[in-house]
Amino acid sequence: MKIGITGTGSYIPSIIAKNEDFLQHQFLGADGARFGYENDVIIEKFQSITGISERRYAKPQLNTSDLGHLAAEKAIEDAGIDREELDYIIFAHNFGDIEHGTIQGDTLPSLATRVKHLLRIKNPKCVAYDMIFGCPGWIEGVIQANAFIKSGIAKKCLVIGGETLSRVVDEHDRDSMIYSDGAGAAIIEANAQSGEILGHASETHANNEAFYLFFDKTYNEEGCPNTKYIKMHGRKIYEFACTHVPNAMAACLDESGESINNVKKIFIHQANEKMDEAIVKRFYRLYGKEVPQDIMPMSIHKLGNSSVATIPTLFDLVRNGDLEPHSIEKGDLVIFASVGAGMNINAIVYRI
Amino acid sequence: MKIGITGTGSYIPSIIAKNEDFLQHQFLGADGARFGYENDVIIEKFQSITGISERRYAKPQLNTSDLGHLAAEKAIEDAGIDREELDYIIFAHNFGDIEHGTIQGDTLPSLATRVKHLLRIKNPKCVAYDMIFGCPGWIEGVIQANAFIKSGIAKKCLVIGGETLSRVVDEHDRDSMIYSDGAGAAIIEANAQSGEILGHASETHANNEAFYLFFDKTYNEEGCPNTKYIKMHGRKIYEFACTHVPNAMAACLDESGESINNVKKIFIHQANEKMDEAIVKRFYRLYGKEVPQDIMPMSIHKLGNSSVATIPTLFDLVRNGDLEPHSIEKGDLVIFASVGAGMNINAIVYRI
Repeated sequence: MKIGITGTGSYIPSIIAKNEDFLQHQFLGADGARFGYENDVIIEKFQSITGISERRYAKPQLNTSDLGHLAAEKAIEDAGIDREELDYIIFAHNFGDIEHGTIQGDTLPSLATRVKHLLRIKNPKCVAYDMIFGCPGWIEGVIQANAFIKSGIAKKCLVIGGETLSRVVDEHDRDSMIYSDGAGAAIIEANAQSGEILGHASETHANNEAFYLFFDKTYNEEGCPNTKYIKMHGRKIYEFACTHVPNAMAACLDESGESINNVKKIFIHQANEKMDEAIVKRFYRLYGKEVPQDIMPMSIHKLGNSSVATIPTLFDLVRNGDLEPHSIEKGDLVIFASVGAGMNINAIVYRI
Repeated sequence: MKIGITGTGSYIPSIIAKNEDFLQHQFLGADGARFGYENDVIIEKFQSITGISERRYAKPQLNTSDLGHLAAEKAIEDAGIDREELDYIIFAHNFGDIEHGTIQGDTLPSLATRVKHLLRIKNPKCVAYDMIFGCPGWIEGVIQANAFIKSGIAKKCLVIGGETLSRVVDEHDRDSMIYSDGAGAAIIEANAQSGEILGHASETHANNEAFYLFFDKTYNEEGCPNTKYIKMHGRKIYEFACTHVPNAMAACLDESGESINNVKKIFIHQANEKMDEAIVKRFYRLYGKEVPQDIMPMSIHKLGNSSVATIPTLFDLVRNGDLEPHSIEKGDLVIFASVGAGMNINAIVYRI
């Protein structure tokens, strides 16, 4: 049985935050001290490594579940399915709905329930749950949908990744410039007329790596010690990702029985352009090959890192011809790959 | 292939909060007004409906993931498996780790990752994720583990339900007396020598019901409007549960092909004793039968409602002969059933 992605949708928030908008921030180190150079230097260095020149933030009145709903509506329309036939709504996120200007995440009820509510789906057999798996959460949701379909308990699943990271960043932390808001969604169907999941792999590295991404107080010593934000050990994550992601991708590709020569696109999580380039270079080196031109669509320059929303949004953009020069056609072999908090890694080898 | 529960464990926190400990609370209505009667009357009425006389709270230094880890260690030992062989760690919760005295839930990294870290499991193929599905989260985790095993991507899964609800209750809300802390865990295995999942059912009712349980500010008008707590429309939940849970249980039992006459125990979510009695009475009435004696083990009197922790803890207690007069033996037919935020309902028909 072929299990494939029959529809995609994304919601890219309307507020554009440019790098220059951070010029007036008071950036501090983990020790609370100012840096020995000005913000324009910090920002220039940031951009040269990450590739990020701007990112998107959701309007104050929109929460993560709203972004997810907007993406889901598009995915349902794109797939041309009757929404009442959905067996699952899987919402991958990491922080819940965070009302603008507040710090508590709200997951009561789950974001999947909120989306089901907004979609006005009546069928109680459509099971809605949330899933937390770091940035790779959307890919993992697709893997779970695939398992549900294979096991015979589902035929059509809606998998959403959505996040409003702008609401959990420490404005005194340079890394706050990485994060953005957004949502992407896809319909996964049994007996898809086109599209097929050929293989997948998932890993959780939870020994020394468990707290490479973590929740902690602001770098500003005058800030509230009980209010926590996304924090990361960037260098460690970089090294971890470059070491483990290429191997996971290769193991997944090899298990699928497909050849590296046929890979047309790699949709990789967008957290850092230099890191993504290093990962893909090492991946090809495992096969003794150079990286082909235009193999890796990048959205990070304009969209930043929207966590779970990144890959479904990127795929949706390319699928719709909205990220030139990239395009995909029926029959193309592609790889989805992600890495993030957990530390989690996953990959899917997919035939369009 | 038989898929069964091969080990269980639970952690019951050590701090006992008795009903009389609430005598000095300033209880308020949803309108912020005091009630026209004293706390002893409120508490007596509360106890007569819910059955709760005391509940357990975790020590300040323990978070939800710690409780989950303690339960998981016992489940692994009970199953007698090598922890490195686990394919999945599924942690069902709804609020993340909430440090004592703070209000933010922390899910960075996921609680499943934290448990894997504490269990010192090295195998990266052991995939750790969190799941949010209201109080029925642990049963849903078992259903997901069952699907992963059936689909061929797992053989051994650890499913944990843990929560520290004492840290998200509004002390001015009478309903705060319902909630408690705890964790329960189980190992689900393919080719189990004993135990078999015979059928399962899940529902999400997200139209009018989506916000029957919700996150909102304290009833105290002087409290911070941005700090949110568990809130519920108790009467609506009661009616919803009595209407829908018996039907879901019956549909699940009928699909399993088993007879109502052979049901030995019903492990039902413990939120309200009167509600549970009404649900089970209606369930038996669907078959034209009276409720058999001792069919429904109850832990609510001493443990309150610990959400996702309730059913695995209850099952563990009965399995170990720690909730007299209840006992179960190999071959017994039992039903697990739960209802909670979402509004979600699920059930499993299980042969011990």
